[in-house]
Amino acid sequence: MAKQKQLKLGALLHGVGGGTSLWRHPDVDPAASVNFELYKSWVRKAEEGKLDLIFIADGLYITEKSIPHFLNRFEPITLLSALAAVSTNIGLVGTLSTSYSEPFTVARQFGSLDVISGGRAGWNVVTSPLEGSALNYGKKEHPDHDKRYRIATEFLEVTRGLWDSWEDDAFVRNKETGVFFDRDKMHELNHQGEFFSVKGPLNIARSKQGGPVIFQAGASEVGKNYAAKEADAIFAGAENLEEALRFAQDVKARAAAFGRNPDDVLIFPGIGPIIGRTEEEAERKYQEVASLVTIENALDYLGRFFEHHDFSQYPLDEPFPELGDLGKNSFQSGTDKIKRNAKEKGLTLRQVALQSATPRGNFIGTAEQVADRIQEWFEAGAADGFMITAAVPRGLEDFVDQVVPILRERGLFRTEYESDTLRGNLGLAVPENRYTKARAEAVRS
Amino acid sequence: MAKQKQLKLGALLHGVGGGTSLWRHPDVDPAASVNFELYKSWVRKAEEGKLDLIFIADGLYITEKSIPHFLNRFEPITLLSALAAVSTNIGLVGTLSTSYSEPFTVARQFGSLDVISGGRAGWNVVTSPLEGSALNYGKKEHPDHDKRYRIATEFLEVTRGLWDSWEDDAFVRNKETGVFFDRDKMHELNHQGEFFSVKGPLNIARSKQGGPVIFQAGASEVGKNYAAKEADAIFAGAENLEEALRFAQDVKARAAAFGRNPDDVLIFPGIGPIIGRTEEEAERKYQEVASLVTIENALDYLGRFFEHHDFSQYPLDEPFPELGDLGKNSFQSGTDKIKRNAKEKGLTLRQVALQSATPRGNFIGTAEQVADRIQEWFEAGAADGFMITAAVPRGLEDFVDQVVPILRERGLFRTEYESDTLRGNLGLAVPENRYTKARAEAVRS
Ligand SMILES: Cc1cc2nc3c(=O)[nH]c(=O)nc-3n(C[C@H](O)[C@H](O)[C@H](O)COP(=O)(O)O)c2cc1C
Ligand SMILES: Cc1cc2nc3c(=O)[nH]c(=O)nc-3n(C[C@H](O)[C@H](O)[C@H](O)COP(=O)(O)O)c2cc1C
Repeated sequence: MAKQKQLKLGALLHGVGGGTSLWRHPDVDPAASVNFELYKSWVRKAEEGKLDLIFIADGLYITEKSIPHFLNRFEPITLLSALAAVSTNIGLVGTLSTSYSEPFTVARQFGSLDVISGGRAGWNVVTSPLEGSALNYGKKEHPDHDKRYRIATEFLEVTRGLWDSWEDDAFVRNKETGVFFDRDKMHELNHQGEFFSVKGPLNIARSKQGGPVIFQAGASEVGKNYAAKEADAIFAGAENLEEALRFAQDVKARAAAFGRNPDDVLIFPGIGPIIGRTEEEAERKYQEVASLVTIENALDYLGRFFEHHDFSQYPLDEPFPELGDLGKNSFQSGTDKIKRNAKEKGLTLRQVALQSATPRGNFIGTAEQVADRIQEWFEAGAADGFMITAAVPRGLEDFVDQVVPILRERGLFRTEYESDTLRGNLGLAVPENRYTKARAEAVRS
Repeated sequence: MAKQKQLKLGALLHGVGGGTSLWRHPDVDPAASVNFELYKSWVRKAEEGKLDLIFIADGLYITEKSIPHFLNRFEPITLLSALAAVSTNIGLVGTLSTSYSEPFTVARQFGSLDVISGGRAGWNVVTSPLEGSALNYGKKEHPDHDKRYRIATEFLEVTRGLWDSWEDDAFVRNKETGVFFDRDKMHELNHQGEFFSVKGPLNIARSKQGGPVIFQAGASEVGKNYAAKEADAIFAGAENLEEALRFAQDVKARAAAFGRNPDDVLIFPGIGPIIGRTEEEAERKYQEVASLVTIENALDYLGRFFEHHDFSQYPLDEPFPELGDLGKNSFQSGTDKIKRNAKEKGLTLRQVALQSATPRGNFIGTAEQVADRIQEWFEAGAADGFMITAAVPRGLEDFVDQVVPILRERGLFRTEYESDTLRGNLGLAVPENRYTKARAEAVRS
């Protein structure tokens, strides 16, 4: 009997939340973003639910206008490493920018996390949308959008090269002969490229999953090509089924055009389920959270996507202002969408700001209803899995306790982990070491 | 009754060891350098002994001549973060280079580790001795010795500035008023220097110990000045009591000359105790380990301090070769000492190589004898504490089980942790936030 295709689930752990005001809710710890015990409890909850992974977002620049979570939060590499020690099966995925890092350091840190966790690391490769990031890194200017992706491409090439420095059987550790490693299975990379030159070898060998899983989260044209070509998984922002389906089909077609099996690029739309015993209770929970957002909060929140542009200078109830190229070099796909949407629907600034800052999403209702919607998206081919965000207090707990059992009953989600590696659970193959592969090919020919 | 001054103790956790051949010992896991469970058990042992801290060394460049531990080991930030989650009181100190990192990233990672661990982080600031490091970081050349220390000085200035981005009471998190933070207590650094320009603020606030403890390990003239001016603690290599005493007096005098209280710079010579029930048993343990080292191993080991210089080209039993400036730009203090020592004592290459690769140290004997020696150095003022290295299998376990109780009986070492922060246990004050201090001074005047 062929087993039904299985849904994948991740949990975005995001401290006091991705919005401006959730921290004010009576049931929220307003210091959640720097409360390690809380993160630990979330990981344990996610692991109890047999979720595939937890996901940590990141950013490199703040101003007084930044949302609360961004001002004071854990750094992903440290946080994921700490969480590795208190979990056993769940994947640990974190965001790190290719625009302001060194491939040797990133390869080491993710490689080390991958070994410490026994093959559970994932890296969300981002290019850093905020121009201000340059100022924290002594750079004259933020590289432009396309250049950032060119850097990211070479960066990942180098990182993957470094992860292959040691073939899996390089360390023989023979106490009798005194041979610690096989010199033929240690490899210098000697990369010389447009942006990086890195000699290698890396001073840590691959984990049993053969290197961290690569996530990506860009949605512009160049971003989608990057994801389709390079990523194992994509964290996507999608507002409705049609949009999600279009995105998934688009990216999978691009992957196929790059010669990849489209099934090897897993698409995870981010969703913020709000679950009530009744629809009304769920709606009440949404309203409770939405009502914490003032119009000033909403304008700040919107501004963030446009390099902290000050939207308080425009009249609130007139059509959304003309912004020209503002935002193009930052969250390009996001700002393009906001502008297009405002124009098409003739929205005012107030409407746009509130829609951004208090998104309702498509996953509000009873646990059954939310499970139905998940199944619908999944079966339509709009998602291989979902990234769950806690849009309301106890959002993750409610999801694990109430929705996951329904998905399980329907045969859509695992009862036990299939594997103790992230690739194993996601159904992704262990990438072959390039040198081992070349040797095998040489033997065959 | 005035309490006796207390000794401080750290444990250098170093996988298969800092030499060439310990991995061949029957009682050693030859994969120890990438065995997280083993590191975890060491940390637990160290914490059981109420040691102040564990210490992780690091390096950024390997060749086929590198010692086994260096080829394939955990990266310090990830390792310490993971260990933070499985310990409660012990300090977590790691090495990170100022020559190949960005201050914003380093400030975040150590800051985040410090918060995750509840104020137990320490940073061993090094400048990277190996010239090859440049090749892994796309640099034309390794900055010269003095320049590396100039970079390190500015780097630390920036990092400390970033750690002060938020005053300790900046986050008010008032749910009623909606005020998340006090804008007057958030500070941009706006540093513009010779090597770095960094805007800030940092996106994580200080831990309760007010920022990581600063360790240092350089021993050249410029290195000692750096340590005396900047460091809270120094990891020193010392071969005998006289040398250790000279070093301690020298550095403390320099600290005083910089206007510091010499007691605020703690000196930790590294020692590798070898403990037996009898002197003979201890000696046997030493010989067992020393006998694993071949002369080829010893020549490679020596070469490492001289940029992997190939010593096999010289006759073994003739006077140590003339090397000119070789090693000056690398482990300067170490290579100077090796050359001086060889000349003064008229040693052959074989003798120098074996002395380097199989050091006997001063701490071999029964637990009583080792405790005596520790007490002697401590009371002579040659050490504020010691960094314990496992020179033989179960070196840490034997030290904790057998020597620590004696030190405790003699009133030299704690029975319980005084604090749950590293500064607290080391008796170091929480550094005052510069802006809070300035405000207090403004009020007073
Ligand atoms: C769902 C989603 C999550 C993202 N998470 C992050 C993040 O954690 N950190 C970050 O710097 N950028 C993040 N981004 C931004 C993207 O990585 C990318 O830099 C940005 O969207 C601009 O690229 P694009 O124009 O190709 O979309 C995210 C984007 C999306 C759609
Ligand atoms: C006891 C001791 C431990 C050291 N540990 C490290 C280390 O872990 N990583 C590193 O790159 N350098 C390490 N070093 C090297 C120093 O940080 C420094 O770069 C080197 O000694 C050259 O500087 P100097 O000439 O001032 O001593 C250590 C040095 C000593 C004496």
